Amino acid sequence: MSSTPSLPDLASTDVVTLTQAVCDIPSVSGDEAVLADAVEAALSGFAHLEVLRDGDAVIARTRLGRDARVVVAGHLDTVPIRDNLPTRRRNESGELWGRGTVDMKGGVAVALHLAARLTEPAKDVTWVFYDNEEVDGDRNGLGRVARHHPDWLEADFAVLGEPSNGNIEGGCNGTLRAEVRLTGRTAHSARAWMGQNAIHDAADVLARLAAYEPAEIEVEGLVYREGLNAVGITGGVAGNMIPPECTVTVNYRFAPDKTPDQAFAHVREVLPGYEVTLTDAAPAARPGLEHPVAQDFVAAVSAVTGGAPRPKYGWTDVARFSALGIPAVNFGPGDPNLAHADDERVPTDQITAAAAALGAWLSPTTEEST
Amino acid sequence: MSSTPSLPDLASTDVVTLTQAVCDIPSVSGDEAVLADAVEAALSGFAHLEVLRDGDAVIARTRLGRDARVVVAGHLDTVPIRDNLPTRRRNESGELWGRGTVDMKGGVAVALHLAARLTEPAKDVTWVFYDNEEVDGDRNGLGRVARHHPDWLEADFAVLGEPSNGNIEGGCNGTLRAEVRLTGRTAHSARAWMGQNAIHDAADVLARLAAYEPAEIEVEGLVYREGLNAVGITGGVAGNMIPPECTVTVNYRFAPDKTPDQAFAHVREVLPGYEVTLTDAAPAARPGLEHPVAQDFVAAVSAVTGGAPRPKYGWTDVARFSALGIPAVNFGPGDPNLAHADDERVPTDQITAAAAALGAWLSPTTEEST
Repeated sequence: MSSTPSLPDLASTDVVTLTQAVCDIPSVSGDEAVLADAVEAALSGFAHLEVLRDGDAVIARTRLGRDARVVVAGHLDTVPIRDNLPTRRRNESGELWGRGTVDMKGGVAVALHLAARLTEPAKDVTWVFYDNEEVDGDRNGLGRVARHHPDWLEADFAVLGEPSNGNIEGGCNGTLRAEVRLTGRTAHSARAWMGQNAIHDAADVLARLAAYEPAEIEVEGLVYREGLNAVGITGGVAGNMIPPECTVTVNYRFAPDKTPDQAFAHVREVLPGYEVTLTDAAPAARPGLEHPVAQDFVAAVSAVTGGAPRPKYGWTDVARFSALGIPAVNFGPGDPNLAHADDERVPTDQITAAAAALGAWLSPTTEEST
Repeated sequence: MSSTPSLPDLASTDVVTLTQAVCDIPSVSGDEAVLADAVEAALSGFAHLEVLRDGDAVIARTRLGRDARVVVAGHLDTVPIRDNLPTRRRNESGELWGRGTVDMKGGVAVALHLAARLTEPAKDVTWVFYDNEEVDGDRNGLGRVARHHPDWLEADFAVLGEPSNGNIEGGCNGTLRAEVRLTGRTAHSARAWMGQNAIHDAADVLARLAAYEPAEIEVEGLVYREGLNAVGITGGVAGNMIPPECTVTVNYRFAPDKTPDQAFAHVREVLPGYEVTLTDAAPAARPGLEHPVAQDFVAAVSAVTGGAPRPKYGWTDVARFSALGIPAVNFGPGDPNLAHADDERVPTDQITAAAAALGAWLSPTTEEST
């Protein structure tokens, strides 16, 4: 008979071994149930934690009546496995290789490790482990919990364990997609002068995008680098027809100084006179580092890593917290450039450093920063 | 019991009624057998004709030992029917409406009409009715006959009954397609500066095509108008990825002064430094109007229509005759701009005029032009 996969005892296992164990229970988006069961079981033995569940999201929280409550969150799912599980530990390079080691089971393991050990944290903590982050936003487990149980997420500040090389990456750029539609007039290509070539008409659109110089925008002391790019183009009916239509799909990554509406207005300014349709947008998140709890966290991390907060360029679920009115930052082990890569791998000392920094911040012995 | 569709007696039916009868036997490419059977049966009653068959191609020829032999050819197939059969005759406008009336059962009916009536033509005539012209070139019935029975097509000159508004349209432009491939480097679109956007790189290719001024080239007294167009474009991997590749499909319609190799070299000159791959090419055909038999034909048509030869812009099967060393022209009733259209229709007087001109040329009473 086969045994149900389980995690080792959280209180006695080192955080790197725990990361490896979390990675070795596969949990591609939509198939997180086995890992969610293991996480729920591993957390249920601790008297200081109340464990809750919604679908494949597991929440564990202290209820100590502290002045402040923080959320520490991480998603359980990964992108598809590419022959890169089980994990392999390379002691000579100090790395752990395999799917999820970066995005983001290192962050999940740090949270599980601390959830078990911090029996009397200085702040009340809600540990959130959720499903379906790597797929369409409407399936996102954090979004679902926010809809089903908004009270479960109430907090003064949130830390999302997305890979950030162990630095604090504040807020995130927003993102929108829009379609630029060129309309011509078809004709047989042997009599091209009777038509109007919509693909040729796209030349100016692409030239404007190629010449566009993205802005660098400072928000709360962090400099966000924007980007405006064609991410798709399609046109043409048949090999002997003048194309009557061409559509350019544009992606704009915009800094947290703009709402999605303002960002779309900017895209229309860059492409004046063109038919531009917004297809989807996700708001940016301000870094939120002005909050005293956030400054406290920055000091704790800086004491361990020596690093200062940076901006996050990619869109992450910190924007969901931001939309709930909760300042949030990204903080987790792993290089985001290796997320989703076949050679995904994390330096194990980033995992232990993240656990040390987060633990120092939440431990009752930590002095509050001024 | 259902009767097998048949054509009316060729010798006693007027050519417009015959056109209608030919159109009303559906013969979409690949389904020409019923019409081919009817054509074979209708031609088989005449002692002056030898009737041959290859697949759904029917050939009827005189064997009078004349000094010259000409081919008069037309394809039996049409593009798909779009609720435009049976044909409708509109006497008030003098038009016959319906699929095939233009492309090219008018030309087929003219040939059937004359094949039956010209029992002793001034030149030996090979009447060719073939299948699968409207589909991929490798299925073309004329090409198949040329491979299976090259002797059946031997001639000094060929007239192809493709719609030309009753004018002689000499030769045809060639056509080639090529792919221009831009190669960039992918990256997450939140960190666009780490990649290179291949769609943006297509801006210059499209600008060059948009600015290109197609040549007008005189060949044997006819001016061929060329065209160089993007007919397709595709690029992009995902809405959050810098596209690593973009492909522009280009169609060049080139005058009969160029071989396909020379035409492709020209495309490469227009797009210097780009990766350009030839995907397919069909040679142009020179008008061949310098041949005495051709001049004879031009004079006969001019006597009826008053018109002078023009160039053919589109590619037609005259290029197949040209490749066999047989000068060939397009000559048939119908406006080529209405070919394949839902409102395909032909003025009936173009049908009778085409029959009169072709009949005059081939009749023994015609004086040879000098």
